[in-house]
Amino acid sequence: MDMLWSGWGDPAKATPLPESVTALLRDLLGVKPHGTGPVELEDIDVPASPLTAAAHRALRDAVGDEAHVRTDAESRIRHTRGKSTPDLLRIRRGDVADLPAAVVLPAGHDEVLAVLRACAAHDLALVPFGGGTSVVGGLAPEQPGSRRRPFVALDLRRMDGLLALDPVSRTATLQPGLRAPQAEALLAEHGFTLGHFPQSYEWATIGGFAAARSSGQASAGYGRFDEMVLGLTVATPEGTLEVGRAPRSAAGPDLRQLVLGSEGAFGVITSVTVRLRPLPHTRVYEGWRFASFEEGATALRRLAQDGPRPTVLRLSDETETLIGLAQPDAIGASRAPQPAGCQAIAGYEGTAEDVAHRRERAAAVLRACGGTYLGEEPGERWAHGRYSAPYLRDALLDVGAFAETLETAAFWSRVPELYAAVRAALTTTLTGSGTPPLVMCHISHVYENGASLYFTVVSAQGEDPVAHWAPAKRAASEAILAAGGTISHHHGVGTDHRDGYVREAGPLGVEALRAVKQRLDPDGLLNPGVLLPLD
Amino acid sequence: MDMLWSGWGDPAKATPLPESVTALLRDLLGVKPHGTGPVELEDIDVPASPLTAAAHRALRDAVGDEAHVRTDAESRIRHTRGKSTPDLLRIRRGDVADLPAAVVLPAGHDEVLAVLRACAAHDLALVPFGGGTSVVGGLAPEQPGSRRRPFVALDLRRMDGLLALDPVSRTATLQPGLRAPQAEALLAEHGFTLGHFPQSYEWATIGGFAAARSSGQASAGYGRFDEMVLGLTVATPEGTLEVGRAPRSAAGPDLRQLVLGSEGAFGVITSVTVRLRPLPHTRVYEGWRFASFEEGATALRRLAQDGPRPTVLRLSDETETLIGLAQPDAIGASRAPQPAGCQAIAGYEGTAEDVAHRRERAAAVLRACGGTYLGEEPGERWAHGRYSAPYLRDALLDVGAFAETLETAAFWSRVPELYAAVRAALTTTLTGSGTPPLVMCHISHVYENGASLYFTVVSAQGEDPVAHWAPAKRAASEAILAAGGTISHHHGVGTDHRDGYVREAGPLGVEALRAVKQRLDPDGLLNPGVLLPLD
Repeated sequence: MDMLWSGWGDPAKATPLPESVTALLRDLLGVKPHGTGPVELEDIDVPASPLTAAAHRALRDAVGDEAHVRTDAESRIRHTRGKSTPDLLRIRRGDVADLPAAVVLPAGHDEVLAVLRACAAHDLALVPFGGGTSVVGGLAPEQPGSRRRPFVALDLRRMDGLLALDPVSRTATLQPGLRAPQAEALLAEHGFTLGHFPQSYEWATIGGFAAARSSGQASAGYGRFDEMVLGLTVATPEGTLEVGRAPRSAAGPDLRQLVLGSEGAFGVITSVTVRLRPLPHTRVYEGWRFASFEEGATALRRLAQDGPRPTVLRLSDETETLIGLAQPDAIGASRAPQPAGCQAIAGYEGTAEDVAHRRERAAAVLRACGGTYLGEEPGERWAHGRYSAPYLRDALLDVGAFAETLETAAFWSRVPELYAAVRAALTTTLTGSGTPPLVMCHISHVYENGASLYFTVVSAQGEDPVAHWAPAKRAASEAILAAGGTISHHHGVGTDHRDGYVREAGPLGVEALRAVKQRLDPDGLLNPGVLLPLD
Repeated sequence: MDMLWSGWGDPAKATPLPESVTALLRDLLGVKPHGTGPVELEDIDVPASPLTAAAHRALRDAVGDEAHVRTDAESRIRHTRGKSTPDLLRIRRGDVADLPAAVVLPAGHDEVLAVLRACAAHDLALVPFGGGTSVVGGLAPEQPGSRRRPFVALDLRRMDGLLALDPVSRTATLQPGLRAPQAEALLAEHGFTLGHFPQSYEWATIGGFAAARSSGQASAGYGRFDEMVLGLTVATPEGTLEVGRAPRSAAGPDLRQLVLGSEGAFGVITSVTVRLRPLPHTRVYEGWRFASFEEGATALRRLAQDGPRPTVLRLSDETETLIGLAQPDAIGASRAPQPAGCQAIAGYEGTAEDVAHRRERAAAVLRACGGTYLGEEPGERWAHGRYSAPYLRDALLDVGAFAETLETAAFWSRVPELYAAVRAALTTTLTGSGTPPLVMCHISHVYENGASLYFTVVSAQGEDPVAHWAPAKRAASEAILAAGGTISHHHGVGTDHRDGYVREAGPLGVEALRAVKQRLDPDGLLNPGVLLPLD
């Protein structure tokens, strides 16, 4: 099934907002109904593909069949940009300025190499396309006007196999186009799980997780995706790169960590070897309440540093707790009024004995830090709605509201300042633009030495909703860098965070990565303008 | 205190072998007494330093004081090569072909930058020098004859401070010249430990651990050094590189992992930010016996994969168990005869409650896997002798025996084949050369997905002990690569493993790293021939 072209997910799951919420948005944020849903796909004015006949032939030869080189309007529209709110606002109004010239579907590593050769020969750029869920402009290459080449969207959906599974070493080699639920189903047949459950879980792919350093909601227990990766195969314009010979090594820099996060700029990831965990026997999610975000954050830090570590550990700030966005599908549903304070979710997955032991000891820590146990109901509600927020966003856009998210991470001692600075930047900028926002935040990834902060912003759309967001996003990025945060904890760099990333990596760091890119992709055909600035 | 110039460690701790062991070596391995200890330092024929007066002035200006630019014979001898057995055999016979032109002692990051500028201006190469404990030729640059520049040994001992400590985030920023015991002492004042205890612990430095991806004996509990590093500052000929803004990030490739393992080829590490753990309240080490190496390895795998994880976990094969090299300082001491099988050590560090819980549950797993509990005595003996093996090597060299180690790692399913292949390669080659060896092995680092193998070889020295080892080392490296192992799990690449590393990283991986080196060190003055081949 294809994702909704103009929004998120399964079109059948779209749910309009209840009238009570629409009224709340109007009264609280001044959201005015637009009445303007997306244009019809058929009505979009799609320019003819700039692909030459010779290029078309070369691409067809690379993938072996005419059916795997698509230049029809719908295929090209469905591969235009990703799923950030500005992306959705543009595509909803029929703006397809970032359209690919063609969508090419290779069946394996050698076909990817052949497509790269065809692109080099015909002066085409290439954008690897997995689930299409980038929220940082990672699918819309930017090229200077003087060197603006058409580009191919390399859709990896045909590369969706489990290539190898080693139950003794607990490793599996997966193709990049596997969506996470497909991968989990294949691994479950052998009694294993990857344990990677980001919000994009239902649509995002293994290759995308690796390319963009994804982190899932159960990262406290299963780790980040970049921590799960043991090996990678990469097709580059200069040939094949294979990295990861042993779980750990002292043989030089860790080249896996050079490929992870490279966002398609160095090559196309064609296989990923990951570590596996046994399927958990038991899963329990429970709610806790803390008097303040600070108190709750201290409790999370205690567990992250001294254990025992829950599998899922997250904390909503006062506003997010109040609004109930922690359970987005419950919004507006009749229920008991929320008490004050901040809600946390602790989840445990594993054997029954391990879950019982960790849960009991973690509960003692949470209580000692001021937490009140709320039972399993809030945990179950969270688990039920854990992939729903992007659907809610579509519903908000439909009624004239604006909703977007951004995220960062920092060392624990910087977290309070970072939290305050980003909130202030978003609130001040949007209020100054006449669209006072709701700013909500949660911690959803904890480490011994720090944590992530994930912000959700809802406001009226303003006159031009794309333009309305730009200064707020800029102010938030400035605040993040000034307060010692990273420009992205798990969304990636893409084009949206490139300027911030250049400041974060520093001139010499960027130069080192550009040197790698120039060696692997001397013509600069891979994802131009994504991750690294153009020359 | 300086290390023994011709061998390992504190000269006062050198202990000759008991006569019983010498007899055993003679009877078992045909070791013939040489009677040739090291030459006297004063007798070594040291050529005059090739440093020009202008270069000397430039280096002095860079570090501010004549006393910090040393060209005397003793200083230069003490910075010649590292501590591999071939290194020791060469220096013992007075071979100083790899002598630096000068030893320079900078006091901080800016002075390192200034030294790099002086080297570039005066056509000098530069080798960063921490504890001088490399066993892979990492301190003896190789340059083609046509481009053979004198080199400066950059001794970092004056950069031995604790720059910052954040008790909330549990991080500390350390200077690279700190030896591990100094670092532990500084951190212990604040109640913290790094938990990094490699065999080189007493002499090796923080900068060296980072540059060479060290792994300590307690890696099961505290992790490898590369897993402890959160940030790095690097002085390169092109300026300063600072990496590590948050514990984890999705902002591009992880540049920390590009610096870690770069062995001085990209720059000089001038500060390292590490994660801290609380000082353990309790430490317990205990012995276990398994019927075979395979049975023991399965037990270790069970604990590594499903927990609970001891802090120290190691297993000697039958030969190492029998010879008692697991407790090197006990060799030849009168004690009860060793029973058959393989000895394992499990160690637990932490709070009393945590240690008790992990120990009890791990014991159940070890028993279920066929283990027999041997009590704490073997654990205490191991802990007492954990840094002694290199002293034993000096004693073996003194009586005409040859002793060297090498190590690798692989995924669990490859471990049995790798073990057999490396043993066979060493035994066959050395037996063929007329010096049948004792080959011993242990697993000392375990991961969910694999483990390290550490081999110790003892034989007669043969006619030319340096030449005698070369074909065995080559055969072992071939066997490692053919059986799917990494060319080094924790010793690093240096010059000794460079050819194997090039095969392991592959042509494109090597090209990517060379591109980085060329951007950061365009004149190739840093550690030429270490890690990466010359052009």
